[in-house]
Amino acid sequence: MRIALLGGTGDIGQALALRWARDTNHEILIGSRDPERARTKADEYETELDSVGVEREVKGFANEMAADRADVVVLAVPAYHARDTVESVADRVGEADVLVSPAVGMDRDDAGFHYKPPKAGSVTRLVADAAPEGVPVVGAFHNLSADRLANLSVDIDLDTLVVGDDGDAVDTVVQLAEGIEGLRALRAGPIANAPEVESLTPLLINLAMENEGLHDVGVTFE
Amino acid sequence: MRIALLGGTGDIGQALALRWARDTNHEILIGSRDPERARTKADEYETELDSVGVEREVKGFANEMAADRADVVVLAVPAYHARDTVESVADRVGEADVLVSPAVGMDRDDAGFHYKPPKAGSVTRLVADAAPEGVPVVGAFHNLSADRLANLSVDIDLDTLVVGDDGDAVDTVVQLAEGIEGLRALRAGPIANAPEVESLTPLLINLAMENEGLHDVGVTFE
Repeated sequence: MRIALLGGTGDIGQALALRWARDTNHEILIGSRDPERARTKADEYETELDSVGVEREVKGFANEMAADRADVVVLAVPAYHARDTVESVADRVGEADVLVSPAVGMDRDDAGFHYKPPKAGSVTRLVADAAPEGVPVVGAFHNLSADRLANLSVDIDLDTLVVGDDGDAVDTVVQLAEGIEGLRALRAGPIANAPEVESLTPLLINLAMENEGLHDVGVTFE
Repeated sequence: MRIALLGGTGDIGQALALRWARDTNHEILIGSRDPERARTKADEYETELDSVGVEREVKGFANEMAADRADVVVLAVPAYHARDTVESVADRVGEADVLVSPAVGMDRDDAGFHYKPPKAGSVTRLVADAAPEGVPVVGAFHNLSADRLANLSVDIDLDTLVVGDDGDAVDTVVQLAEGIEGLRALRAGPIANAPEVESLTPLLINLAMENEGLHDVGVTFE
């Protein structure tokens, strides 16, 4: 399968790119608004993979080109760029593709981080509303520490939560997620349940700030 | 320490009563609006404890009397009774006591359960607003499955999250929580962070409904 990571030069994009490249045979395409930057970062990821004994090609493209070539398009951009990014690739994705939304809207005050969804109700819903008719949208990978995943010397044993209204698209993303060693994907229901999933992210940051030894904390459900 | 569980005849009250009675030396007071019902349930808890070889006295009282005698008062009532219950015991709690709020506001639709905080922003904040001046309020125990804890044959290895604005009161509740075998208490910051903690509860219910083998699911952070 071909996975495009739009905004794949950022931290969660890098994290997923490295883990998928190391642990699976999926073809990894790094997208950026700046194709030169995408190519530079893709080269860096190849070097990083090579340093752990993995010889893999990672390619960089403009977001539009990456989306055009991919089966699964991950919107690895900040929440406030989610809509723009979907719109920029709208004519490059079709009903056979899957759009994946890992972004979370948050703000911060003196107490900590707080869930602040867009007016649509969740970023996943915002993406679904902005996506072309018939293109399935799945929310996933919100609650993973990018720093922890990007460090390939760290073994993980974590869960990620998947929401979506299209069962086949959800199955695809569950399988992609579980291709990463030590990652389990749990189903959290339709997109209407995305707020409860997305709001876990500010909680994790608050726990990391308030407790010794929980830097880059993740979650497991049992 | 004396712990009053107001609404202690309900499921989370029963769960905490049984675990504290089995695992600690704290004195456990069951409160109910109906003192006769409190005494009946307290007797049932004694019988349950006796069946696992633990001889402990558990006493039942009217909520007001239980609160009056206790150092820590747990509001083990549904979210929509939290304010009434605090008001009913307002003249029985003092600055040396701690009020603990485990309740969560939720609603349900076809997709699943959703976080629905009261207008105050969270149930913990609602309780803090209703509490007498100077009485510290701590949010905790939201994300525990009552059925799982009430079954004393089940070992647990779970986290609970604690929020509060009064450091000493938070410390007291962290210690109380960790008196339960297999339960770790993590600090989630001030009461302003309660929404991110409380919204974990509908997520857990959604995960239990959507995934095989996650009935009575709990959470750990690592």
